[in-house]
Amino acid sequence: MEIELKNLKGTCDFLPNEQIVRNKIMAVLRNNFEKYGYLPVETPILNSYDLLAYKYEEGAEILSEIYTLKDQGKRKLGLRYDLTVPFCKVIGLNKDLTLPFRRYEIGKVFRDGPVKLGRAREFYQCDIDVVGIDGRLIEVEQMLMVKNVFDELNIPVEIKWNNRKVMSGLLKLANISESLISNIIGLIDRLEKISYKELLEEFEKLEIKEEKVQEILQLFSYDLPTYVSKFQNAEIEVLKEGIQECVELQNLINQLGLENVCIFSPRLARGLSIYTGTVFEFFDKQKRIASSLGGGGRYNKIITEFMDNGQQYPAVGLCFGLEPIYVILSNQQQIAPVDVFIVPMGTEVECLTLASTLRANGVRVLVEMKNKKVKKSFEYANKTGIKYVIVVGSNEIESQTFALKNMFTGEQISVSLSEMLNILKN
Amino acid sequence: MEIELKNLKGTCDFLPNEQIVRNKIMAVLRNNFEKYGYLPVETPILNSYDLLAYKYEEGAEILSEIYTLKDQGKRKLGLRYDLTVPFCKVIGLNKDLTLPFRRYEIGKVFRDGPVKLGRAREFYQCDIDVVGIDGRLIEVEQMLMVKNVFDELNIPVEIKWNNRKVMSGLLKLANISESLISNIIGLIDRLEKISYKELLEEFEKLEIKEEKVQEILQLFSYDLPTYVSKFQNAEIEVLKEGIQECVELQNLINQLGLENVCIFSPRLARGLSIYTGTVFEFFDKQKRIASSLGGGGRYNKIITEFMDNGQQYPAVGLCFGLEPIYVILSNQQQIAPVDVFIVPMGTEVECLTLASTLRANGVRVLVEMKNKKVKKSFEYANKTGIKYVIVVGSNEIESQTFALKNMFTGEQISVSLSEMLNILKN
Repeated sequence: MEIELKNLKGTCDFLPNEQIVRNKIMAVLRNNFEKYGYLPVETPILNSYDLLAYKYEEGAEILSEIYTLKDQGKRKLGLRYDLTVPFCKVIGLNKDLTLPFRRYEIGKVFRDGPVKLGRAREFYQCDIDVVGIDGRLIEVEQMLMVKNVFDELNIPVEIKWNNRKVMSGLLKLANISESLISNIIGLIDRLEKISYKELLEEFEKLEIKEEKVQEILQLFSYDLPTYVSKFQNAEIEVLKEGIQECVELQNLINQLGLENVCIFSPRLARGLSIYTGTVFEFFDKQKRIASSLGGGGRYNKIITEFMDNGQQYPAVGLCFGLEPIYVILSNQQQIAPVDVFIVPMGTEVECLTLASTLRANGVRVLVEMKNKKVKKSFEYANKTGIKYVIVVGSNEIESQTFALKNMFTGEQISVSLSEMLNILKN
Repeated sequence: MEIELKNLKGTCDFLPNEQIVRNKIMAVLRNNFEKYGYLPVETPILNSYDLLAYKYEEGAEILSEIYTLKDQGKRKLGLRYDLTVPFCKVIGLNKDLTLPFRRYEIGKVFRDGPVKLGRAREFYQCDIDVVGIDGRLIEVEQMLMVKNVFDELNIPVEIKWNNRKVMSGLLKLANISESLISNIIGLIDRLEKISYKELLEEFEKLEIKEEKVQEILQLFSYDLPTYVSKFQNAEIEVLKEGIQECVELQNLINQLGLENVCIFSPRLARGLSIYTGTVFEFFDKQKRIASSLGGGGRYNKIITEFMDNGQQYPAVGLCFGLEPIYVILSNQQQIAPVDVFIVPMGTEVECLTLASTLRANGVRVLVEMKNKKVKKSFEYANKTGIKYVIVVGSNEIESQTFALKNMFTGEQISVSLSEMLNILKN
């Protein structure tokens, strides 16, 4: 063999014990999405580069992370880096969709970042979005769904939330010029990840002095009741509006008994600049991993711009990260391939038929096909973790009575086909 | 908006009514794979180009169809074009796997062919493979699974099968030189797709005259009993072996009652050169589409070469094509997003709680959130195909009695929560 057998750094294979857990997470997500009326949509991974790039300015960091390629027709293509741009495209291309329209998509996205540990080139995003509904009700419903999902996955979760209007408003209050607001919101979002010294340096680059930084930090440090009492009658319209939205959302959170799950967090921004109101991110309460397990928020402008027809398209959505959730639930234990291992002794065809009967009843079955000695078959069952084995000779076929051996306990019992079915189905 | 909103030719979006069908097909496949003891594995889409290309000679057609790209580190990458090479890699990288090892993988593959109608740039393959078992038993079991899958999908299926050893043997019998055998097997496979004139031209290129072509066509036109009586004692070892294998397989097919499903087809080759014995392809019996719905076969050499450790790694596997199966089952009908639409009349929070209760019992629920008039809500339910609607005011919340309206019949009945649950769960 002439090539070195390996995976690219930043990619990996998931073997069965891992992939079974990943499939289970995706099944829980899918099931919850559908219970909330989100329907599946699938969009292509390959897109024209222009479509992927259009909403960013040249030089934006995300652009350098798009994998680009040319096809045989010399078209410039890119691999999608998120599922939000494809969602906006679907809305734009299907003008006859009945609104509100809810969809989910679970699929791979690709980012050509620096190759280092923990940074995957390709990973799953699991997104839900709804277009056509403004207001807090749908936002709190999405938070409720987040809680449902993590309850089912048995991961205690904390949902931090904030409002972009409040952030912009507070910066306006501090006399920050419009052109710097988006930059500074980004800095505030990183507050917990960088040191105070680094923070000052970053502000320095924007020509903002320490005194002003102190004032800003102060403004982003209150609890919601303090914001309300201080600013509910502020002269800055966007601040007043933002505070009003926060009060509405907090009321709904309280009424639904989510106040210990959903925590107002004035410095949370969620990187992307598309958000226009409520934003939220969710975290493992036990802090087994520090990064978020996903997040989302309201983005009322981007589809509206996409559609460009004078109508408003308010939207809100969120993304579950399969990879961080999997890190918490990852399993290195062996998982049995099947429920029962049938070992034929000169009864191969009869055993295939027997296996068919069991499978038709939902039992997972392996039939031994290497004509191994019985001892070897028991070893294989032990090694792969299969719980039950039956050895089937012509006597068993004739009498339709089988010796069902429990490999975990060593116990062996004589059963009819229907008795065996009952045991294996449980 | 500055860009034209569209999908690349050769890619498309699948909207909910389509994607629900596709998800159902994948669920049926997954479920059957697992009942036969195949476990999920997932491999990356991005690979080093060298890994993808290693088993082909330079200039091979498949190489020109690999999407290639460079990452920021200037590595030459490619998008996988099948799931078999990744499977072989997994076996090679995980030398401690207990054999026999069965895995399935459902995932996207990419091919940069000429962009034309019906030729997708990216599509799903749904593969099962097992390494470590030789013999006919596992081959017939895979055919049995194919039948199970299509029975469940309600698509009557025909499985055509053949044996590569027989094909090679017959060509040797016709004194075809070893170097041309693979080429000619490819031509024979295309027999039904090209005219006799084209066929002669292709043979001409290999410097084979019409008389010889006639002889070859004759050799590939018998039924199995004729092959047996003519060649079971042939001096060409590979032909004798191949016929023997065919007889074994046909016997198993008969014993399992599959003789009307599995049809010996002496000209079926299945394009790829990796196959070493039994090959098979399956087709819609009603011929709603002409191309195969999938196929597979035995390939005993490629992993053995990959492992290069003196041991044999016999393997057999098959691939279901999601796209052709979907073409048959595709659905243009509207699918209701949920089971019930709840319209609050000033009872938004109570309705979210009611929805939670229903969802916890597996019911799919939408809550109206735009404060629309009741009439508008009924219209939305009609338009999207939702069967049940309840309008919930404070009276309903107090009495816990709800007016459940069936939008299909127009009938409205008064029910308790538990009565409603019973109706909606069915």
